[in-house]
Amino acid sequence: MKESDFLQWVFQQDVSGGYDKILVGPGDDMAAVNFNGSQLLVGIDQVLDMVHFDLKKHGARAAGRKSLARNLSDVAAMAAEPAGAVASVALPGSLTDMEARQIYLGMKELAEEFECPIAGGDISVWPAKMGLLHISVCIFAKPSDGGKVAPVLRSNAKPGDAICVTGDLGGAWHTSRHLEFTPRIREAADLARKHQIHSMIDISDGLATDLYNLCNASKTGAEIFADAVPVHPEAGRCGVSPLSAALADGEDYELLFTLPDRLSDAVCSDDGMDLKVTKIGVMTDAGKVVITDRNGKQKPLEKSGWEYET
Amino acid sequence: MKESDFLQWVFQQDVSGGYDKILVGPGDDMAAVNFNGSQLLVGIDQVLDMVHFDLKKHGARAAGRKSLARNLSDVAAMAAEPAGAVASVALPGSLTDMEARQIYLGMKELAEEFECPIAGGDISVWPAKMGLLHISVCIFAKPSDGGKVAPVLRSNAKPGDAICVTGDLGGAWHTSRHLEFTPRIREAADLARKHQIHSMIDISDGLATDLYNLCNASKTGAEIFADAVPVHPEAGRCGVSPLSAALADGEDYELLFTLPDRLSDAVCSDDGMDLKVTKIGVMTDAGKVVITDRNGKQKPLEKSGWEYET
Repeated sequence: MKESDFLQWVFQQDVSGGYDKILVGPGDDMAAVNFNGSQLLVGIDQVLDMVHFDLKKHGARAAGRKSLARNLSDVAAMAAEPAGAVASVALPGSLTDMEARQIYLGMKELAEEFECPIAGGDISVWPAKMGLLHISVCIFAKPSDGGKVAPVLRSNAKPGDAICVTGDLGGAWHTSRHLEFTPRIREAADLARKHQIHSMIDISDGLATDLYNLCNASKTGAEIFADAVPVHPEAGRCGVSPLSAALADGEDYELLFTLPDRLSDAVCSDDGMDLKVTKIGVMTDAGKVVITDRNGKQKPLEKSGWEYET
Repeated sequence: MKESDFLQWVFQQDVSGGYDKILVGPGDDMAAVNFNGSQLLVGIDQVLDMVHFDLKKHGARAAGRKSLARNLSDVAAMAAEPAGAVASVALPGSLTDMEARQIYLGMKELAEEFECPIAGGDISVWPAKMGLLHISVCIFAKPSDGGKVAPVLRSNAKPGDAICVTGDLGGAWHTSRHLEFTPRIREAADLARKHQIHSMIDISDGLATDLYNLCNASKTGAEIFADAVPVHPEAGRCGVSPLSAALADGEDYELLFTLPDRLSDAVCSDDGMDLKVTKIGVMTDAGKVVITDRNGKQKPLEKSGWEYET
C-alpha cells in the first residue's frame, strides 16, 4: 500500500464526521483547527533510524536536529510561525545517557533559533535488542504576522499559475544537507507577505512526488520545463542523471509554490529574498503532470522519491 | 538513566529560556502554552510494540485504540477537554494493509466518543526485518467549561490534603483492562468542577511511582494507608501480593488526586460521580513517602512500576 492510498482511505472514513473543529484536515503539510476562535496549525512528523538517518553514521544529535527541522519545514510550507513543539523518543536500550542527551540538544539548537520552545515530551525504551531509535515531533504554529498572512495550502493552485522552487535540488541524501538544512520559515513568510502565493508545499519527498501531491490537492495538472529545474551541483550519481536526481531524490526541504504567472518575474528577481527562486513550469488544467525537454518533447513526469510501498 | 533523571536534566537546560510562551513546562501530564491569549494544553505519548502492547497477541486495532486512550488519560489528568489529535505511525514492513487500517479504526472509535478529531498524521515504514510498530499521538486540549475549570496540575498538592484514587488498582497488564480502559475525561472534569481538587495525575506508571511524581512536583511527602488502597480483584499473581500489585503495577489509567481533607468525605460519597472514589492517605510535609499498615507500622513506599532504567 502506498502512503497516498492509505491517506485517501483515511479521508473516506469521514475522520471529521460531526466535528466543526477541523479547518484543514489530513493531506496538507499541517492540519488547521479552530481553537477558541484562533486558527491553530498542528503537524506531526517522525524520523526513523535507517530510514531518515543512520544513527551509527550520523549520531544522535543530528537525528534530534532533523526531527525538529522536518517539522519546521512543514510550518514553512504553510507560511506560518512556529509556536512550540512536543517530542516523543523511543530509545534502543543500547543508547548511552550521553547520546540520549544529544538528541535533545540537537532539537534545542533549532528550537532557540526559531523560537519554538519544546514544551514537553515522552521517553520510552525498546526491550533489549529490539527496536531502533524513533523520534516523533508534533509542532504547532499560527498564521504569520498576527494572523495577517493566511496559511498557504496545497489545494489552491490555479491553472496558469507559474511553478517556482527555492534553492537547488538533488543529492541531499548523499551529503549532510538532509541533516543540516535550515527550514525556510522566514523565507516562506516573506514570500506569502510580499507576493501573491496561491499554493505551497515543501520538497521533502522529491520534486516530482510533491508536485503530484500539490496537483492532486488542487485538482490541476502541471508542466515542468526540464531545462529550468535548478539542479544541485551534488545531484546525480550511480547512473542517475543530475536532472533525474533533482526531480526524484527528495530530502531537499526547499519550497515549491505557485503564483499568477504575470507575477513570477517579480518573485524570481526579488533582491529582498535572500534565496534563489526559479520558475520551473506552469500549472495546467490537463489533469496530468508532464515534463517538456528543450526540443519541446513532452512525457509524463515520473512519480518517485520517498513514497513508500508495502 | 531513569526517565525522571533525564527530565530533570532537560529542565536544567532552560528549554524555555527567553520564551514567555510556556505556562506549564515538561513534567506534568500535559504542557500548557499561551496561544493567542488562550491556554493551549499539549501532550504527546507513544506506544511501542513489546512494551505497551503485543502486536501478535493484541492486534493492531487494540494498539491504535490504546495510543489515543493514553493521551486522553493525560487530558483527564489535567481535568481538561480534548480538542484534537495528530498521530505518527511507524509500520513494520510485514504489516498488511488491513492491519494498518485497523490502527486507525482503533483510534477513531475513541476519537468519536470523546469528540477529539484526528486532524492529521504521518506514516513511515521500517526497513525490511527491522523495527517494531510504533505509534505516537500528540493531543491538544483546552480548559473545561470554556475555561472556567482551571487545569489541575501535579504541583499544587498541599500538606494535609487527602489523597484519593478512582477505581480499583492492580493487575491491569495481565488482563485486557490496559487496552480497553475508558479515559476518565468526564469524571475528571466533574471532580474539578464540583470539588476543590488541588492536584491530579493519572496512574499509568503505578500508584507508587505516580504518587512520587506528584510529591516531587508539589515538594511534599505523603502517607498511604495500606488497608485503604482499593485493590482490584485481578491484582496479584506469581508471588506478588495483591496490595503490591495495586501499588506497583501501573497501566490502570485511573486518577490520583488531592483535596482539602475536610472535603474528602464529600467526594468519596458523591452519588453524582459514576465512579468509585477512595481516600487512601494524606499529603505531608515530611519530604518522604511512606505506607502505614493496620498496626500503625510505617515504612518507605517502594517506588516501582514502569519507570525505565538504561
